[in-house]
Amino acid sequence: MWSGDDAAVVKVPSSPGKASGSPLLLLATDTVVAGVDADLSLTTLSDFGWKAMAVNLSDIAAMGGRPAHALVSVVGLGADDLEDLYEGIGEAAAQFGCDVVGGDLSAGSEVVVSVAVTGWVDGEPVLRSGARPGDRIWVTAPLGAAAAGLRLLRQAGPGPHAWGPVDQALVSAHARPRPAVAEGLVARHAGATAMIDVSDGLAADLDHLATLSGVGFELGSIPVADGAAIDEALAGGDDYVLVLTTPGPAEVVNAFLAAGVPAPYLIGECVADPRLRRVAGKTLPVAGWEHLL
Amino acid sequence: MWSGDDAAVVKVPSSPGKASGSPLLLLATDTVVAGVDADLSLTTLSDFGWKAMAVNLSDIAAMGGRPAHALVSVVGLGADDLEDLYEGIGEAAAQFGCDVVGGDLSAGSEVVVSVAVTGWVDGEPVLRSGARPGDRIWVTAPLGAAAAGLRLLRQAGPGPHAWGPVDQALVSAHARPRPAVAEGLVARHAGATAMIDVSDGLAADLDHLATLSGVGFELGSIPVADGAAIDEALAGGDDYVLVLTTPGPAEVVNAFLAAGVPAPYLIGECVADPRLRRVAGKTLPVAGWEHLL
Repeated sequence: MWSGDDAAVVKVPSSPGKASGSPLLLLATDTVVAGVDADLSLTTLSDFGWKAMAVNLSDIAAMGGRPAHALVSVVGLGADDLEDLYEGIGEAAAQFGCDVVGGDLSAGSEVVVSVAVTGWVDGEPVLRSGARPGDRIWVTAPLGAAAAGLRLLRQAGPGPHAWGPVDQALVSAHARPRPAVAEGLVARHAGATAMIDVSDGLAADLDHLATLSGVGFELGSIPVADGAAIDEALAGGDDYVLVLTTPGPAEVVNAFLAAGVPAPYLIGECVADPRLRRVAGKTLPVAGWEHLL
Repeated sequence: MWSGDDAAVVKVPSSPGKASGSPLLLLATDTVVAGVDADLSLTTLSDFGWKAMAVNLSDIAAMGGRPAHALVSVVGLGADDLEDLYEGIGEAAAQFGCDVVGGDLSAGSEVVVSVAVTGWVDGEPVLRSGARPGDRIWVTAPLGAAAAGLRLLRQAGPGPHAWGPVDQALVSAHARPRPAVAEGLVARHAGATAMIDVSDGLAADLDHLATLSGVGFELGSIPVADGAAIDEALAGGDDYVLVLTTPGPAEVVNAFLAAGVPAPYLIGECVADPRLRRVAGKTLPVAGWEHLL
């Protein structure tokens, strides 16, 4: 049965007469649909392929796993378009060490790309449900970049465009989101108690984590990507930044720095009242914090 | 990289400091599209869910593996329809011991169901490429039932219909194809040298096997499902019967019978000339045997 986590966790059986000495197997799947998950008049098919891989790799990252293999099913593309799609798929696969080992092509009137990924975890994966009152809450990068990038692309319309460096970073965050694979591994080793990736927006995803952990939370300031608005940081999805909780403040920062990964941003703390959602000093009823936005 | 087999074969790593005592991991994916892979005016959404699972389970069966876990991605269905779809998915999952551990739902204008499955193999999986000259060629059941069932459904139109027992078996073979999981396991233990499932039709799939094995073949008589035509047996797809090759004639039949699985049907023999395709005494050029149909 589905656990509510980013990926399912499966034990590897041992062969008859042998001891099991294997890591746990992670399994995840995510599908992207043209016109729903990406506007192909604004970004390329290669970007779409990258994104199909990235959203899946992010599921493995959010468990603290290392990506291993991917299967890619494509509906509704001809040979030339497939080549463009696979360019982005291949780039993401190579960059994050995830080997594409199989797939399927089908006819159809809509472009749909379903990816399934596997990952390995030596030890215990990080679940969404492990946060405890008093745990600190962190994000691995400033938020809102992907939503701001989409806003810029929509304002500019189809085209090539000459973006300045700030805008280019936002557009890239939308077109080629980066799964936080290294961050997820370091966070698990540093003792993260719970973790989730920001696919639906910080507000929604932190709410999932808190609900599954049975805690409330109180947030202070939230790091906003350069050029993004606060509502884009709170509600904009598709950032694929990780939100994690840890029992203590220093170890996780040191672990990130020791691994050569940029330090995470402290954004708040878990509290015992599971109904409490407080942001920047304002107390909100459960499911009420969309009014902040 | 994709091997050309029904499923990819992946080694399970060992945890640091431990010996690997695990079976090999099989990974496969197949997608079904409404209107392409099934006509939802003739069969139900529950049947469609069953089929989405069955085509994937058949990929594991064709490697001689045992199914383990499935991930299911669905595009384009609302809540009520999802329940119908999952009824068939759940029935196939339960019947073949394959636990659905995750999935994804997306909006879309077309109904697309992508399934990814894992399986385990203790020992060596059976590939498509292992057939040798002199090997016998077998099928695990008579062919053509699914194609004949689709013909009956098309002739009768949307309905409920009161089918006689022969027609009902054909219609069921189309609506609820049965992956040959037990047969695949027994065939591997009995020393099958190559195996493939009949998804595109015997002609096409045996051609794949022979091409990847570098052999030709000579076929005698082919078992035709009761009520099906010979062309449906040769070219009709979606039977999910297994084609296998073995070095000797007796062991495989004994192994099937000992396991309580119906004995396979001997249909021919592999020959050294990789260009030879001979059916019922007629010699055909490579890729030419569609003229027989």
